[in-house]
Amino acid sequence: MKQITDGELKTASLEQLKETCGALREEIFRTVSVCGGHLSSNLGTVELTVALHRVFDFPEDKLIFDVGHQCYTHKLLSGRANVFHTLRKRGGISGFPKRSESEYDCYDTGHAGTAISAALGFAKARDLKGENYNVIALVGDGSFNNGLVYEALNSIKILDSRVLIVLNDNGMSISPTVGGMHELLGEMKGEPPLEDVKLFERFGLKYSGVINGNDLSELLPALEEAKEALKTGSVLLHVSTKKGQGYSFCECAPVETHGVSPAQKHSEYCAALGEELCALAQTHENIVAVTAAMTDNLGLRPFFDRFPERAFDVGICEEHASVLCASMAAGGMKPYYAIFSTFLERAFDEIIHDVCAQNLPVTFCIDRAGVSGADGETHQGVFDLSFLSFIPNLTVAIPKNIAELRAMLRLSADFDAPLAIRYPREGTEGEISDVEIGKFEVLHSTTSDIVLLAAGERCLSLAEKVRAAALSEGMDVSLVNARFLRPLDEELLSSFRGTVITLEDNVLIGGLGDCVARFYRKRGYQTRVIGFGFSDCFLPHGEPSELMEDFGLNFENILAAVREAYARR
Amino acid sequence: MKQITDGELKTASLEQLKETCGALREEIFRTVSVCGGHLSSNLGTVELTVALHRVFDFPEDKLIFDVGHQCYTHKLLSGRANVFHTLRKRGGISGFPKRSESEYDCYDTGHAGTAISAALGFAKARDLKGENYNVIALVGDGSFNNGLVYEALNSIKILDSRVLIVLNDNGMSISPTVGGMHELLGEMKGEPPLEDVKLFERFGLKYSGVINGNDLSELLPALEEAKEALKTGSVLLHVSTKKGQGYSFCECAPVETHGVSPAQKHSEYCAALGEELCALAQTHENIVAVTAAMTDNLGLRPFFDRFPERAFDVGICEEHASVLCASMAAGGMKPYYAIFSTFLERAFDEIIHDVCAQNLPVTFCIDRAGVSGADGETHQGVFDLSFLSFIPNLTVAIPKNIAELRAMLRLSADFDAPLAIRYPREGTEGEISDVEIGKFEVLHSTTSDIVLLAAGERCLSLAEKVRAAALSEGMDVSLVNARFLRPLDEELLSSFRGTVITLEDNVLIGGLGDCVARFYRKRGYQTRVIGFGFSDCFLPHGEPSELMEDFGLNFENILAAVREAYARR
Repeated sequence: MKQITDGELKTASLEQLKETCGALREEIFRTVSVCGGHLSSNLGTVELTVALHRVFDFPEDKLIFDVGHQCYTHKLLSGRANVFHTLRKRGGISGFPKRSESEYDCYDTGHAGTAISAALGFAKARDLKGENYNVIALVGDGSFNNGLVYEALNSIKILDSRVLIVLNDNGMSISPTVGGMHELLGEMKGEPPLEDVKLFERFGLKYSGVINGNDLSELLPALEEAKEALKTGSVLLHVSTKKGQGYSFCECAPVETHGVSPAQKHSEYCAALGEELCALAQTHENIVAVTAAMTDNLGLRPFFDRFPERAFDVGICEEHASVLCASMAAGGMKPYYAIFSTFLERAFDEIIHDVCAQNLPVTFCIDRAGVSGADGETHQGVFDLSFLSFIPNLTVAIPKNIAELRAMLRLSADFDAPLAIRYPREGTEGEISDVEIGKFEVLHSTTSDIVLLAAGERCLSLAEKVRAAALSEGMDVSLVNARFLRPLDEELLSSFRGTVITLEDNVLIGGLGDCVARFYRKRGYQTRVIGFGFSDCFLPHGEPSELMEDFGLNFENILAAVREAYARR
Repeated sequence: MKQITDGELKTASLEQLKETCGALREEIFRTVSVCGGHLSSNLGTVELTVALHRVFDFPEDKLIFDVGHQCYTHKLLSGRANVFHTLRKRGGISGFPKRSESEYDCYDTGHAGTAISAALGFAKARDLKGENYNVIALVGDGSFNNGLVYEALNSIKILDSRVLIVLNDNGMSISPTVGGMHELLGEMKGEPPLEDVKLFERFGLKYSGVINGNDLSELLPALEEAKEALKTGSVLLHVSTKKGQGYSFCECAPVETHGVSPAQKHSEYCAALGEELCALAQTHENIVAVTAAMTDNLGLRPFFDRFPERAFDVGICEEHASVLCASMAAGGMKPYYAIFSTFLERAFDEIIHDVCAQNLPVTFCIDRAGVSGADGETHQGVFDLSFLSFIPNLTVAIPKNIAELRAMLRLSADFDAPLAIRYPREGTEGEISDVEIGKFEVLHSTTSDIVLLAAGERCLSLAEKVRAAALSEGMDVSLVNARFLRPLDEELLSSFRGTVITLEDNVLIGGLGDCVARFYRKRGYQTRVIGFGFSDCFLPHGEPSELMEDFGLNFENILAAVREAYARR
């Protein structure tokens, strides 16, 4: 679509603004249909974003998105209409706010709950520097469950600054929003009870709402009023929007249309998680499942449907979910906590402090491990092997395919210690193999002393290709499925004396290669270890295959390492 | 003191209970005077704990302490009076709840905010298993600032279970409690306003309070009533206690007597932090300091006194503090975030997502790094090198003494990227040395091809001893101060071709030794790396020197490695 300038937006009539909203909605729908991305959340916030751009002066004023999966309209209004078709593509614009992309994006996001803290930081910096601009945090009600939001609210009086919090209340996280705060916000949608208003006032916020966030004629005066009130203090503007607004099938299915992917090519690991947990729960009455607002994306819907009394969606509360699992385990249950790899970073301390220090049998089912692709930096699950590798008492498993995930889950049911299983979103069902804790699987054994040691489906697939190419050049190499990071298969590793080439879809630092090399160092073996994995940087958005190629898991380079090892035998 | 049995406690008269409280208080005071430990928090909760033991039936009922630094009376009442004199000593009882120590300790704690989540987990497990016991979370008002508490409160209705939350409100974290929630709780100490009561009710809690928690005649009926109410739903019992109760100098100085150490032998790193930040802030107007409720323990008091408008204690909100620093940096400030090593685990995601992914110039001043000693498992800062080693854009520094910390801080003021400086509590001032990012310091250079590469004061001191012993045996070795984990001094490392022996007070996995070995692997050098650091387990409480000796940093073993390397030259 044609770029709309700030000037055009400031002078347009209400009717023209409504037309603009229609055009923006169409553009978002068309682009997401091709590129994939967050659909319903963006469709729901078109009017709200247009109104914010009308009333405030960006980039002087600062607009901070919580999570950021509702920033498409903002991108279209801030000089990026001409590149919007490159959304989420390698080298194209990101699906999240990025400071490196535009001065209109003042703060990068991707994980939930950071926006109010970030707004307070900007506002305080402004005050200290004697500057004069407005700071707005746009936060969904799903994030309002997150502890970070509460920590920030608690800080408003401490920091004594002025921010505008726009609460975009659509009743949804990715799953429907749950819990006490959700009920409180819901109650306010009638005539807000005085005590609820007073609650926000006690935290230092002037409450205003509830405004229909899909109606510009309500929004514009409400934002003007909030802007005025912001001169003397902090304001919470409670706005109600409809996720998926304007496309009836999105409005009716906000969970399914929250994130949209271009046609799926493969099976999803998460479906196997749901199936296996359901099967296991029939014979293991102590199995419970926990998720932080992502029941469907993690494949847990069948479990939630069949065992509702043993299934818990606690909202976007990754830390709490982790402690809940630890304590349910201490109370005799067998909890499974399903979560995306990068979101598990939020529960890092609780994995150590609550689960592993007490050696409790919690199973972490870590989805979107490895490079996740189009969501970019904040969603690339390339640190988990590193941050799990050094936690005492923890076993870390990496299935080679969906069938092996199933086998690991079956094994987990009677495993009485902390266990993490990490896997990517998509893959192939593959063959069922027997799994034993701490035992690798030899896939091809040769007499050559060169071993490709690969973890996970993507790396094994790459290793297979390298092996085939090597074979065609007359070089034979062994191939091993390194399905446990902790404990390593020390017996098998002890048998390798030549060159071990490790492949992992994790950053190289602190991952499989380092663990294998440490083992040989400790034993005093001369076995050479050559590690391939992601380089020491944040991976941008793009196709997983492109990112692997460009950031360290490069077919040619690995083949070259095989050639070099072969030559020096 | 003599062990008081459950039977005695249940049948004692009010007068006898008061006498018991006096005896407990004396025992705690006497023991902490010798062993060190948490004083004021334990003195404040004597009556409350006695009343809980009188009214409930432990260990059938479950008592979960938040943080756990108020559990001494509980230990004295649950069969541990005869071993209480071993408090915090190697092999003795822990200063925190430990499941491994007693069945009365049902859940281990040490970090803030976990108790309500843990209570909900136990309660849900109880319900699912058809069991019947009471679950009580004892939480300080300081923890009530923490996001985890809010996530747990939000979950009460979701989990639909029954727990008793005893809010022990003494107006203190380690520093005085701050923020909106604190004001709300303070307001309730008069006649609780209806809207505040309703707030808790909306989260599914029956509110009861405020009870004088140092008065058994108020406490006992209130707890009986709460126990009755607990049969039909969750209850919040708001109790007001006086931190340090019974010892006037503790009541008057609750911050200073929160934690008591046996006589200090050395200077503290944190004092240098306060001094240097004050000096730098005079010339760098953009410097701000942030702490999560530990102003004094981190040495920031002078900065808070001199630059109150640039100093922020946001309460026990480690995540929020991290985002606040990131956004203040994005807004043009230069934030210093001082924090204990293990508490920084709470901000792990925000270090990655907010600070480093945006490459913002936040400086993390990480105190209590390495083995911290008597506080045990939850406070041993032995993971930080591992969890910081793989974060892109981050520089990680390890000063060799207090003077070097000063130099690093001066260097940091104009360093425009994320920086972490980790140091122990105590050490020596030592000599000032020039510091350059990514450059090690050669302390002793020899022609032998054996190098001791040590990080931090404790390891360098150990390495000096090993070197002296080696010299006396006619073996000369080089000694290098490895003061940066990221980036490594690749130029210097490239010059070592024999054996490099690394020493770090961090777990071996993912630390300095691994980073150095990875460098040589990548370069294809044959340099041998022998790593010494902590073994793959949680370190219990004890003297730092004992723990180093027993868990991997053993003088004899390191000297043996030198001998072996010397022999094979």
